[in-house]
Amino acid sequence: MRDVSIVGIGQTKVGEHWELSLKELATHAILDAIKDAKIDRVDSLYVGNMLSGELTGQEHIGALVSDFAGLRGVEAIKIEAACGSGAAALRVGYVAVAGELSDFVIVCGVEKMTDRPGEQVTAGLATAADGDFEAQQGISFVAINALLMRRYMYTHNVLHEAFAPFAINAHKNAVNNPNAMFPYAITAADFKKAKMIAEPINLLDSSPVCDGAAALVLCPTEIARRFIDTPVRIRACAIGTDSIALHDRRDILKLEGAAISATKAYTQAGVGPQDIDLFEVHDAFTIMSVLSLEACGFAEHGQATRLGLDGQIGIEGKVPLTTMGGLKARGHPVGATGVYQIVEVVQQLRGQAGQNQVAEAQLGMAQNIGGSGATVITTILESLA
Amino acid sequence: MRDVSIVGIGQTKVGEHWELSLKELATHAILDAIKDAKIDRVDSLYVGNMLSGELTGQEHIGALVSDFAGLRGVEAIKIEAACGSGAAALRVGYVAVAGELSDFVIVCGVEKMTDRPGEQVTAGLATAADGDFEAQQGISFVAINALLMRRYMYTHNVLHEAFAPFAINAHKNAVNNPNAMFPYAITAADFKKAKMIAEPINLLDSSPVCDGAAALVLCPTEIARRFIDTPVRIRACAIGTDSIALHDRRDILKLEGAAISATKAYTQAGVGPQDIDLFEVHDAFTIMSVLSLEACGFAEHGQATRLGLDGQIGIEGKVPLTTMGGLKARGHPVGATGVYQIVEVVQQLRGQAGQNQVAEAQLGMAQNIGGSGATVITTILESLA
Repeated sequence: MRDVSIVGIGQTKVGEHWELSLKELATHAILDAIKDAKIDRVDSLYVGNMLSGELTGQEHIGALVSDFAGLRGVEAIKIEAACGSGAAALRVGYVAVAGELSDFVIVCGVEKMTDRPGEQVTAGLATAADGDFEAQQGISFVAINALLMRRYMYTHNVLHEAFAPFAINAHKNAVNNPNAMFPYAITAADFKKAKMIAEPINLLDSSPVCDGAAALVLCPTEIARRFIDTPVRIRACAIGTDSIALHDRRDILKLEGAAISATKAYTQAGVGPQDIDLFEVHDAFTIMSVLSLEACGFAEHGQATRLGLDGQIGIEGKVPLTTMGGLKARGHPVGATGVYQIVEVVQQLRGQAGQNQVAEAQLGMAQNIGGSGATVITTILESLA
Repeated sequence: MRDVSIVGIGQTKVGEHWELSLKELATHAILDAIKDAKIDRVDSLYVGNMLSGELTGQEHIGALVSDFAGLRGVEAIKIEAACGSGAAALRVGYVAVAGELSDFVIVCGVEKMTDRPGEQVTAGLATAADGDFEAQQGISFVAINALLMRRYMYTHNVLHEAFAPFAINAHKNAVNNPNAMFPYAITAADFKKAKMIAEPINLLDSSPVCDGAAALVLCPTEIARRFIDTPVRIRACAIGTDSIALHDRRDILKLEGAAISATKAYTQAGVGPQDIDLFEVHDAFTIMSVLSLEACGFAEHGQATRLGLDGQIGIEGKVPLTTMGGLKARGHPVGATGVYQIVEVVQQLRGQAGQNQVAEAQLGMAQNIGGSGATVITTILESLA
């Protein structure tokens, strides 16, 4: 097994790209990443995507994207793990380079959601839930998260307003991200009066439906400096799983898949949550940030909202979160999100995060979650600059 | 990089399983494979599947199947490459073991197609084709293959009846496969009078819509004999790609993706077509067998139908094909097919193919094709008995 680094990143702006198709979005991100890395060879391409079949009528996007991006012939496949598809593709790419089966790998996450009516998107997202026991009973994916949030508030005696800092922080950081979908600040008052979606989840607890693509170039660390002065080493990339259906979990407020994934990653990297300089948390809903932080050891169970209320999640806080806007404000093109998170950690570790730069960031973490916690991928990255 | 072997196989009968869901089919195959290998530990699960979203309303089947099969917690993801999904999942599992990232890997291919009306299945299968330039113009996946077959017949001056031996051979071999969907023989007269589907492709040129699941257990070769006396070594497993749309290819009668994939596999294994004792060819349509055989060097371009007409494709022939019935008569549950092919090669190399046993089979090959040739995975297996 050999060490792996990221030597190139690319991304499109997140938003409603009615003028760009899935393969065009993916190609923009891939070509940006290749240009950034200045590589002249690609061995394989792993495309993270959830809903190309349901929302664009196109499967087989590994070959499609590879051809359109000028990479015809290379190994190319699609990786799917619901909203965790992007980082699952990174895991496959990481294994290929670490295991010495590929030298130059492109990992791309892409999703195209906004060309379809909302009810079709809602039905598509519900395919991340258990078809027999959840989706078929008529519950939407937002409603599943609402059950979790309601239970959390009841069990831990937490008010809805305690979740506001996660959304406020994400929007504040998005202001300085030119690729963010919602680059504007919100206030506690905005959060309080936001439209209810599925009680207690309101519009500002929720990440948006959107389009986007992000890409990475991976290669062995031993040759990374040939391409870039600031390679970012993948210290760990690990997957844990849990039941899809909430009723099958031992404790619905403890994300066991996230705990397994984070424990594997910490062990592989030889670090703990106290060593992490910034954390790209999977804030699809504010409740998911809270459960993820607790599963990863950044807070005791029932305590994660304290991090926000105590001002510890900002760029200068103890645990900077969603430093470029997160799923909430950068946007959540579901199968692409896991790759966007990694691109942003790389920006931080290269010192390229502009006004959102976390001072002296050496070790960054991202956690990408599929469904309501059934597939969780934790990645720990280290600056080699 | 270390050597990888297959130490367990499992499969369900292929057919219309109206009483079994996707996760139940997959679980039957996985538990059979685990029982066959007698392992007591699994590190990761890769599920090859094409149409779970479109036809069962369920994505995220990596976590779903892992939980239902009693493997909750392990790394689990879905791999998609159209009809090549099964062998693409094998490639990912192979890389994980070869690269020393996992020791015990389950590769499962599963597809559930028969619960939906035919037009929905036809639309689903068309997502393997180019959405912009093929499917959206109204051409079905059968019709794309019909264009290829018509062109082949014209260019090489080959009559339709020259394709009959591939279907007759597949059906003959299926008679002795208890897991085949169509375990009965057909004659040249049956082939001639079969109903036309998309001219010149008739019903007996075509593989059926069906359900099924197959599974493999992979581990390092160095410990394989702890579990089984007859491990089967993966000498090579390689992916090549091409454009999805036919009009973008340099020559539509030459499957470049198949040639790239086969060349990589031959090089890795250090063998050539003359060394292969049996070949599980991707006979989704008889024309696809012909194009695959030519791309892999078993025949010159325009000559592959001679193999059938000269009686060289039977169990005792020079190039035994589809030895357990192939996609045509064992059945083609699309995302599962690539794994069924490998299961059958393993049966041959273990000497467990019963009346269909190829004498002294040492080296077997399988080629799994996504779309009309855009993603091609070639696997070469060797008996270590």
